[in-house]
Amino acid sequence: MYHHHIEDDTHYPGLSVSKGIATPPMRNPYKKTFKHRPQYTTADFVQGILDGDRTVLSLAVTLIESANPVHYAQAQEVVEQCLPYAGKSLRLGITGVPGAGKSTFIDTLGSAIVTSGKRLAVLAIDPSSGRSKGSILGDKTRMNVLSVSENAFVRPSPSAGSLGGVARKTRETIVLCEAAGFDTVFVETVGVGQSETAVHSMVDFFLLIQLAGTGDELQGIKRGIMEMADGIAINKCDGSNIDKANLAKNQFQNALHLFPMPESGWLPQVITCSAYERTNIDKVWKMIMDYATFTQENGYFNRKRRAQGKYWMYETIDEQLRNSFYRNMTIEKMLKKLEHQLDKNEISSFAAAHKLLDVYFDIKSNKEDER
Amino acid sequence: MYHHHIEDDTHYPGLSVSKGIATPPMRNPYKKTFKHRPQYTTADFVQGILDGDRTVLSLAVTLIESANPVHYAQAQEVVEQCLPYAGKSLRLGITGVPGAGKSTFIDTLGSAIVTSGKRLAVLAIDPSSGRSKGSILGDKTRMNVLSVSENAFVRPSPSAGSLGGVARKTRETIVLCEAAGFDTVFVETVGVGQSETAVHSMVDFFLLIQLAGTGDELQGIKRGIMEMADGIAINKCDGSNIDKANLAKNQFQNALHLFPMPESGWLPQVITCSAYERTNIDKVWKMIMDYATFTQENGYFNRKRRAQGKYWMYETIDEQLRNSFYRNMTIEKMLKKLEHQLDKNEISSFAAAHKLLDVYFDIKSNKEDER
Repeated sequence: MYHHHIEDDTHYPGLSVSKGIATPPMRNPYKKTFKHRPQYTTADFVQGILDGDRTVLSLAVTLIESANPVHYAQAQEVVEQCLPYAGKSLRLGITGVPGAGKSTFIDTLGSAIVTSGKRLAVLAIDPSSGRSKGSILGDKTRMNVLSVSENAFVRPSPSAGSLGGVARKTRETIVLCEAAGFDTVFVETVGVGQSETAVHSMVDFFLLIQLAGTGDELQGIKRGIMEMADGIAINKCDGSNIDKANLAKNQFQNALHLFPMPESGWLPQVITCSAYERTNIDKVWKMIMDYATFTQENGYFNRKRRAQGKYWMYETIDEQLRNSFYRNMTIEKMLKKLEHQLDKNEISSFAAAHKLLDVYFDIKSNKEDER
Repeated sequence: MYHHHIEDDTHYPGLSVSKGIATPPMRNPYKKTFKHRPQYTTADFVQGILDGDRTVLSLAVTLIESANPVHYAQAQEVVEQCLPYAGKSLRLGITGVPGAGKSTFIDTLGSAIVTSGKRLAVLAIDPSSGRSKGSILGDKTRMNVLSVSENAFVRPSPSAGSLGGVARKTRETIVLCEAAGFDTVFVETVGVGQSETAVHSMVDFFLLIQLAGTGDELQGIKRGIMEMADGIAINKCDGSNIDKANLAKNQFQNALHLFPMPESGWLPQVITCSAYERTNIDKVWKMIMDYATFTQENGYFNRKRRAQGKYWMYETIDEQLRNSFYRNMTIEKMLKKLEHQLDKNEISSFAAAHKLLDVYFDIKSNKEDER
């Protein structure tokens, strides 16, 4: 199941070899054309985006998210033409367990950013859930200030799909937002799945939002996420939580010291704050700006961006190679049998793998049994 | 470069289509035959291994490590026939930065194990270095007791190769050792590379050896390794180090509490010890035995083993799919150009990936350009 081939077939339907007398495509002039082909040309989309038109931007993101191969092909053209105008924003990844107060935090920090004259895009990546289930961003109403600001563009997570697919869509959406003049981009994720690694690989700064609790309450965060953080904000540091928050701050600082210095040369900072009472949010923003200055000066900022570009090329290749293999029906059937043999210790992992690979490469070279 | 095909070609040279009159293969009867084909038949190897003969076992491991396709094919047969007798050992992964005293620790713990009547195999995985460079096990002489014990089999790391290759060889060596009656297997690795993940995926218990220091001294350990540990032994807890070691123990225990409970249901323990003074080594061993009992009772032990078998099948498949792609000469050339375009923001990561994939699948289906 190699997606790109589908696109080629459908993009130029007139060029396909007809099996007999070609039937002209059915057309109902009264049907809304967007269902089959967007009303805007690629040039319309690109111009609208470059003009900073949020309605056109929104339609273009819908195009990116569409499963329709025609939309998909046009989306690729739009992204390609927006690329030269992209790359000039500060990209901030925000993660934290549900209940850490991410929405309020994003709304508070975000409104400070737009008030200062900047333009902010807020995206989400959350492949595990549909629009309304897990993603806080699905509930736009929680972002009271941002949802009505002219300088903000809030976009919920694309509906469920593979992590690779959602990650691609989010990265392409970043390109469009940047081309539309958004100079700050937030990418939000729920800190419970594999999506954090994906977000970490598409942002400049990765912020972990934690709760002002200690011990058991802190254990919700997935192993490894703390180590990706460039900074930790301990939220809900208000009322009776203040002592607990300061304790948690010390704990995290000590834990961070156990790890070696990150490649950026930047020692992750821990800041207590309250998005609800709007305290210390400026400190969090200052930390992020300090990080940007620091890494731009030592060259890490651009080095990381370039590495990310390559990372996603390699990720896409690896995912497609795996899809081509594992979605092959013959392989799927063999795999089940071999897993059973593995469980019974009748075959070595290596021998099982090579049995499958032999069959797969035979199929590929004979072009039989495909998808 | 698809290894299995090379093997097929060379295994039955008489079956290849001759380009003219076939020249009979040159044979020098005085030449040592092992260079081309091992003296032992597969049945000889298997019988020797099942008899617990360490010399035959050692030759069989050499066969596994050989780059010669004939040896490779025979090694696969030997492994396959030993599989039904394997799986009955306790597999212990041991990691730690250079200088943590792994050799002395392994020698001390290992001699206690063999003295108690058990049979111990000590293997190493270290793809980055040759036999003598980084691996402490390359220096057998440091294991004074084990190197002369009849109930121990100490094998240095296979010489440099890809991580996947070295991991496969180590896993196959474990099978042979178990079939030879070794009921305890140590797999040692230096805690600085990717090899820890590999070792973690082939053992039952993963032990991290740390130094009795605090602050900066602890930072040598790679991010993420601490989280894989089922237990931490703080070594060199002797003389003037005792206070520092106890401090480090507290630090690690606190840090471990920040992470959620592992799937095993086992809370990792931290134990101070001195391999040099032979103190608390029994406590470390008791921890490992407690873990084994605990996970065997809750079913995690066998579940993990089965998951590992599948993990290595999938790892092997993914590695071979990547090799087939990235070692293709046309792809290699295109890749360089596209990386350059990516750096200049002229193409998206996704578009670059699909350009390469289109070419690759065309080559595969046309059978052209294959090495």
